[in-house]
Amino acid sequence: MQWTVGEIARALGARLTGDRRVELDGVASIAAASGRKLVFADDERQLKAALESAAGALIAGVFAENARSLKPLVVSAHPRLAFARAAELMAEQEERKPGIHSRALVAASAVIGSQATIDACAIVDEQATIGEQTSVGAGSFIAKGVIIGAECRIFPNVTIYPGTVVGKRVRIHSGAVLGSDGFGYVRDPATGRHVKFPQIGSLEVGDDVEIGANSTIDRGALESTLIGRGTKIDNLVHVGHNCRIGENVIIAAQTGVSGSVVIEDNVIVGGQVGIADHARIEKGVLLGAQCGVLPHKIVRGEGVAFWGTPARPLRKYLKSLAALASLGRDGD
Amino acid sequence: MQWTVGEIARALGARLTGDRRVELDGVASIAAASGRKLVFADDERQLKAALESAAGALIAGVFAENARSLKPLVVSAHPRLAFARAAELMAEQEERKPGIHSRALVAASAVIGSQATIDACAIVDEQATIGEQTSVGAGSFIAKGVIIGAECRIFPNVTIYPGTVVGKRVRIHSGAVLGSDGFGYVRDPATGRHVKFPQIGSLEVGDDVEIGANSTIDRGALESTLIGRGTKIDNLVHVGHNCRIGENVIIAAQTGVSGSVVIEDNVIVGGQVGIADHARIEKGVLLGAQCGVLPHKIVRGEGVAFWGTPARPLRKYLKSLAALASLGRDGD
Amino acid sequence: MQWTVGEIARALGARLTGDRRVELDGVASIAAASGRKLVFADDERQLKAALESAAGALIAGVFAENARSLKPLVVSAHPRLAFARAAELMAEQEERKPGIHSRALVAASAVIGSQATIDACAIVDEQATIGEQTSVGAGSFIAKGVIIGAECRIFPNVTIYPGTVVGKRVRIHSGAVLGSDGFGYVRDPATGRHVKFPQIGSLEVGDDVEIGANSTIDRGALESTLIGRGTKIDNLVHVGHNCRIGENVIIAAQTGVSGSVVIEDNVIVGGQVGIADHARIEKGVLLGAQCGVLPHKIVRGEGVAFWGTPARPLRKYLKSLAALASLGRDGD
Repeated sequence: MQWTVGEIARALGARLTGDRRVELDGVASIAAASGRKLVFADDERQLKAALESAAGALIAGVFAENARSLKPLVVSAHPRLAFARAAELMAEQEERKPGIHSRALVAASAVIGSQATIDACAIVDEQATIGEQTSVGAGSFIAKGVIIGAECRIFPNVTIYPGTVVGKRVRIHSGAVLGSDGFGYVRDPATGRHVKFPQIGSLEVGDDVEIGANSTIDRGALESTLIGRGTKIDNLVHVGHNCRIGENVIIAAQTGVSGSVVIEDNVIVGGQVGIADHARIEKGVLLGAQCGVLPHKIVRGEGVAFWGTPARPLRKYLKSLAALASLGRDGD
Repeated sequence: MQWTVGEIARALGARLTGDRRVELDGVASIAAASGRKLVFADDERQLKAALESAAGALIAGVFAENARSLKPLVVSAHPRLAFARAAELMAEQEERKPGIHSRALVAASAVIGSQATIDACAIVDEQATIGEQTSVGAGSFIAKGVIIGAECRIFPNVTIYPGTVVGKRVRIHSGAVLGSDGFGYVRDPATGRHVKFPQIGSLEVGDDVEIGANSTIDRGALESTLIGRGTKIDNLVHVGHNCRIGENVIIAAQTGVSGSVVIEDNVIVGGQVGIADHARIEKGVLLGAQCGVLPHKIVRGEGVAFWGTPARPLRKYLKSLAALASLGRDGD
Repeated sequence: MQWTVGEIARALGARLTGDRRVELDGVASIAAASGRKLVFADDERQLKAALESAAGALIAGVFAENARSLKPLVVSAHPRLAFARAAELMAEQEERKPGIHSRALVAASAVIGSQATIDACAIVDEQATIGEQTSVGAGSFIAKGVIIGAECRIFPNVTIYPGTVVGKRVRIHSGAVLGSDGFGYVRDPATGRHVKFPQIGSLEVGDDVEIGANSTIDRGALESTLIGRGTKIDNLVHVGHNCRIGENVIIAAQTGVSGSVVIEDNVIVGGQVGIADHARIEKGVLLGAQCGVLPHKIVRGEGVAFWGTPARPLRKYLKSLAALASLGRDGD
């Protein structure tokens, strides 16, 4: 679809200098841009490169408002955000072919919304519901009774177990497994064997969630695992049974969240973090990469960064690190 | 299937007070229980909630033996274990439809046991053997010559490479990969290139093992990788080539076990632990979450907990941590 | 295929003592070898065992050149490398049946090279290209426009997103996901929501790369993610968007590489390492298992080992560890 830069500036509520009529069909990096692409500049160096590039128009921060530009220039207080939004606006309508592929397998009792796409070798089991305009990628398996909302995108080779309910506009990347059994056993002291604790709860995923490739989210044992609205989960993340994760949480790659953990709204979790069972990460906390939170621990402080294992406020942790380094320095 | 609470108490060998004839059809959490569900209470608080719930009957510890209950009350020295066992007893027979789905692909030379289920888009390659009452989920791939025992459950989208032998009653969750190539190369000093060391060994998985979603277990290089009977492996765990893992071992999510590691019986490994090549974790050791064991290291001590990197006995490690924290405390 | 040990020694450029005409059909471990197998010995103990084994011939280091052997003995300065090469030579031609399986799904506009194999339930989407003699395993999904070179092996249940280009002789193990969206969002300060930054770049994988089971490699955001020639990646590794990984790099299992990281040639990365965004690991560095590299950090030193979080030269880090341990020792 074609947009003029004027239309884009208006949609963003941003100021525009230059020719409003320049036509654009997407975004690009400064290096790769051609004449119909929009680029963005976060600083003076990028601005210079953007102005010299082949791009058709650019978005830049307020610092650029007096820049001399031969290209249309959109000025925004949050150029990166404005660029992301412009990209969303111009995103090519994915070339989906609505309908059920002849090699897909949809149970007679499943409900498929209008304009939904079920790709080849995808399986939608009995009594499952697929929302309107949702696509289920090739080879994905949607178990009996699963409910998926409208406008979701399930990429190829995803597996969703029974007992899972997914909201609207959710994106689930390839290889992700939702609703698998939690890891709970009871050791029999007489035999030393591990008897499986029942894993029969559910998993609820809110609207606008994104789940990365090969991540796994277990169903609740007896209750529910919950992923709040707008939360974004990277690749290879593990979320255990009974976790309650709030809204607009960010969880970077390879982080592990043990069973019964609570993560409140707006928390940011770095990569390879480990959060032990029953811990509670309160609103707006930042957990630095690779840090570890102990079982039943409460981590508190909006905007406060924690680091290390066991996780401590970053400032304190850095002091310890510096002291440790100096200890090792003798006779270096 | 319907059970009376009297039948359940008898099967558990536990004492029952109250009406033996109350009928149950499953277990539930206290919050979600309806009149045909069994719940359990580990302490006084849970007992009170259970008694006030809609549950049909409850299991509780010895502390509850004199409790006044209007519901049938099963008293057990290990209420959680008794509950897990009761759940197992009452577990609905999974609604499996034995047989080979018309869209499954089973090689003519494969052997499929009686009452086995091969789901749609599952592939059982030449000379593979699937045991009686075993189910192979949709989209799973069972390579040439693989042997899978009776009563196993292979969830959808599992991949099993050649050279793998799986015991009885094994559960393998979606996305797991068994028998993939080990990570072994020999650097050619003349060219700097990495030449692949042969990865042609096998993988043997014992009876009653459970393997979590998206975990990977490599075949041996020249010999075998072994997973002992009753061992339970969580999601996103990696087990390298030539490892020998004993019986009734517990390995939590995202732990990595490098090549040629030995883990003896009854070891418990926390989440995100790293065990370097050729280490040996002896009987009954506990490795705390995120700890790291160095190459060729022997970790010993039944019931002894280790933590940190390099892993040290927990008591010593905690002292160091305390000392470290106090070092960083000056002028705080 | 049959080889004589004489032919093998000649192909390796190695010295042979004993009967050149002994016939071999593969390699084996010393314990499992039969009369047509080649084994190798790295030290005196292995040499003794190899000589006493049922193996048909052996490779050993220079230390063995005067050994008395009744078997043909190939002497090499790099016996392990020579063994790996011999294994490669004798590797059975994989029993591939070239052609497109009747249950595979290949778009009319896809280009399939001669002698390529497309297995059952594999999907090759529109305008994708599969090179000569490449095999695409059962259930794998090759998206629209993807290009895969010659002699590659894509194992079952792999997913490759649009925008991915794969070189020659690349091996991609089951469950791996290539070209998935990077993890990039821009927080909208007005609403607290995370707006997706465009993830529309590409992924290029060089010749002779191997990618382990369930690893994930994201496409670039606006530019490319690059994996250099000859690089080997283990299982469950994550590589973020815009990373540039050089040639002949080794990355062990469960390591996470954040966005925009540069790893230069010949770097060796241990297991469970975390490399934060925009870090640069220079030529020939060794990163020890579980270590962590901070954002924007440059790590430098050919052949220098780094360890700990934040990663420091191993020698310094060990001193700190020793000091830390002694701090905790009082009154033990």
